[in-house]
Amino acid sequence: MKRIYLDHAATTPLDGRVFEKMSPYFMDVYGNANSQHSFGRDAQKAVDQARDQIARLIGAKPGEIYFTSGGTESDNWALKGVVKAHKNKGNHVIISKIEHAAMLSTARELEKDGVEVSYIDVDEQGFIDLDQLKKAIRPTTVLISCMYANNEIGTIEPIEEIVKIAKEHGILVHTDAVQAMGAIDVNVSALGVDLLSFSAHKFNGPKGIGALYIKNGIPMDRLISGGHQERTRRGGTTNVPGVVGFAEALRLTKENMQKDNEYVASLRDRFVQRVTAEIPFVKLNGARDMAKRLPSNADFSFEYIEGESILFSLDMDGIAVSSGSACSSGSLEPSHVLLAIGLSEEIAHGTIRFSFGKENTVEEVDYVVDTLKATIRRLREMSPLFNLKGEIKDV
Amino acid sequence: MKRIYLDHAATTPLDGRVFEKMSPYFMDVYGNANSQHSFGRDAQKAVDQARDQIARLIGAKPGEIYFTSGGTESDNWALKGVVKAHKNKGNHVIISKIEHAAMLSTARELEKDGVEVSYIDVDEQGFIDLDQLKKAIRPTTVLISCMYANNEIGTIEPIEEIVKIAKEHGILVHTDAVQAMGAIDVNVSALGVDLLSFSAHKFNGPKGIGALYIKNGIPMDRLISGGHQERTRRGGTTNVPGVVGFAEALRLTKENMQKDNEYVASLRDRFVQRVTAEIPFVKLNGARDMAKRLPSNADFSFEYIEGESILFSLDMDGIAVSSGSACSSGSLEPSHVLLAIGLSEEIAHGTIRFSFGKENTVEEVDYVVDTLKATIRRLREMSPLFNLKGEIKDV
Repeated sequence: MKRIYLDHAATTPLDGRVFEKMSPYFMDVYGNANSQHSFGRDAQKAVDQARDQIARLIGAKPGEIYFTSGGTESDNWALKGVVKAHKNKGNHVIISKIEHAAMLSTARELEKDGVEVSYIDVDEQGFIDLDQLKKAIRPTTVLISCMYANNEIGTIEPIEEIVKIAKEHGILVHTDAVQAMGAIDVNVSALGVDLLSFSAHKFNGPKGIGALYIKNGIPMDRLISGGHQERTRRGGTTNVPGVVGFAEALRLTKENMQKDNEYVASLRDRFVQRVTAEIPFVKLNGARDMAKRLPSNADFSFEYIEGESILFSLDMDGIAVSSGSACSSGSLEPSHVLLAIGLSEEIAHGTIRFSFGKENTVEEVDYVVDTLKATIRRLREMSPLFNLKGEIKDV
Repeated sequence: MKRIYLDHAATTPLDGRVFEKMSPYFMDVYGNANSQHSFGRDAQKAVDQARDQIARLIGAKPGEIYFTSGGTESDNWALKGVVKAHKNKGNHVIISKIEHAAMLSTARELEKDGVEVSYIDVDEQGFIDLDQLKKAIRPTTVLISCMYANNEIGTIEPIEEIVKIAKEHGILVHTDAVQAMGAIDVNVSALGVDLLSFSAHKFNGPKGIGALYIKNGIPMDRLISGGHQERTRRGGTTNVPGVVGFAEALRLTKENMQKDNEYVASLRDRFVQRVTAEIPFVKLNGARDMAKRLPSNADFSFEYIEGESILFSLDMDGIAVSSGSACSSGSLEPSHVLLAIGLSEEIAHGTIRFSFGKENTVEEVDYVVDTLKATIRRLREMSPLFNLKGEIKDV
């Protein structure tokens, strides 16, 4: 059976060219990048080049890029590192209600340690409430963090405006750009953020490698301490193949971004158009202005049925989609993002995220819509809720 | 120029068979192991198999293996996680003075937060002082941590005895087995430890992947929080190729351990014998009983010269060795391990670690000894210290 992958927000296949670039660093250039000999220097040279390239591609200086094991570590570090290093200034942080679990659970842990956290609402499209954000600012606020683009509903947040507000009060800004990096031409200088998290596997790079951008001069405590790696700010032997693959994946992504985005958005738009036209009782979640949502994202709530049932049924047909994020799978709680945009628990439970990628085709989109139509009809026919409703007999 | 790698304690080349095993998980089986569809299940299956295999190989249960980004993260997590989760019991930990920087710097950070840390001495061979350890125990002690084998001098510590002492007082024991795992048939059940750190790249596995063994039932706070990965104890998208390579590397290592150890030890012994016999004013650091040191390790202090000079000179001849650990390279301070075994700063600065691997040959050993002899003679001839000494004119 042909399988169709529509879960690119969870992870992406490694690009063959990235694999080629990484390959020599497993068995040939295998030195420890911190070693003071030719094997070490060869590795260090590759790491330096990768760091330079990544920095250049996002408008940073090489010394502002700190490699981590991925987006989650970067988020944990950003939040805990700033809070700990700024204790003298204050004990309050502001984050949005629709942050990734990496931020939300870290914030909750900090609350247990006495840190005060304000969680800012979003509107029904998922945009952060900037007025509420302004009002939440206190003299003790040390950090505002808002994700660049949401992983479930794809809404792109107004980071520049948040930065403008924060700078008026001398407050640092962090953004989780894990979802944004592959789809938006992220430039940290233009954005003006102080810290930014990103991860390679979301844009056809390897898993297990990410980075935190930390603007020069920002005081930060460490999350993982040890040797002198990463200017003594993050210990641990450098993952050389990972770093090399990360840089190559970002280079390819930036190089082809406009073309790839246009193509992926065209698939997504066709999908949204057909689903909206052909399946009744559906709601597209996230930004209505397609320019303000990730080109890959379509997030639909299907009334009267469970998302899990849709997911399992599509999976039987070889179609991979997601109910909520992969990171919260296994949890029976409805998505905090969907509740934050005002969906009821019932509707939230009937939600599926479709995230497209550049290897998908128009034929796949059409096949998925056709399959989805049949699936939804069948599931609704079995749904007591839908039959009680009785509004429509044959959809 | 032929190059000779004698820095296996810093890192090792990836085994070709490990690379073969990992390869399909980059571009073919690329799903997020947490995703609820066939792509995710394929990835999860590989992760489950790897976890089962690693658990079985070290005498643990699969649910006791937590994947991390490497030994440093595992060490940080073990120490901070136990301290935070046991605040009600006490606020005191005991570690050896010769721990890796990943433990020592974490301990120093905890001290800043008010945690009390006792640093236990070692004798001139690097063995921990068990009497001092016993006396350091307080009613508030929550953790004793001692590395299994030292990364600089190769001394293997009496972990079973430490566990016996700790258990009498109901204290948890952690061991950093990063160096030990490739050379000792580590079995957590037999050892009786509660937590154990290890990392794949020290035994021909990939960089960027490690694990923390946490015995079932041990309360632990998280270091990196986020999604539900690793039974909600360590967030972050699972590094599937890394995990697969980790398991395969450990399998191969355990399978060939006796043969490989005998071979590597024979190279090391030949090296030690020749250096000791043919180069004057040298001192072998670490355990004198070769059964109580890592088979790969030879750590020599060369009097009257700087280790850095030896290192650079050997490097010019294509020979890769280390002065201290790669993780502390860039630091001008003498090794804390060498000072702890009683060396003077001067002697400590003249120290070189040679760490052998299974791909080294007898011919390489002989070439290195010959080169080293010439190097040491030349450097001593230029050394004012040595000439002042005047004890020997032609060595």
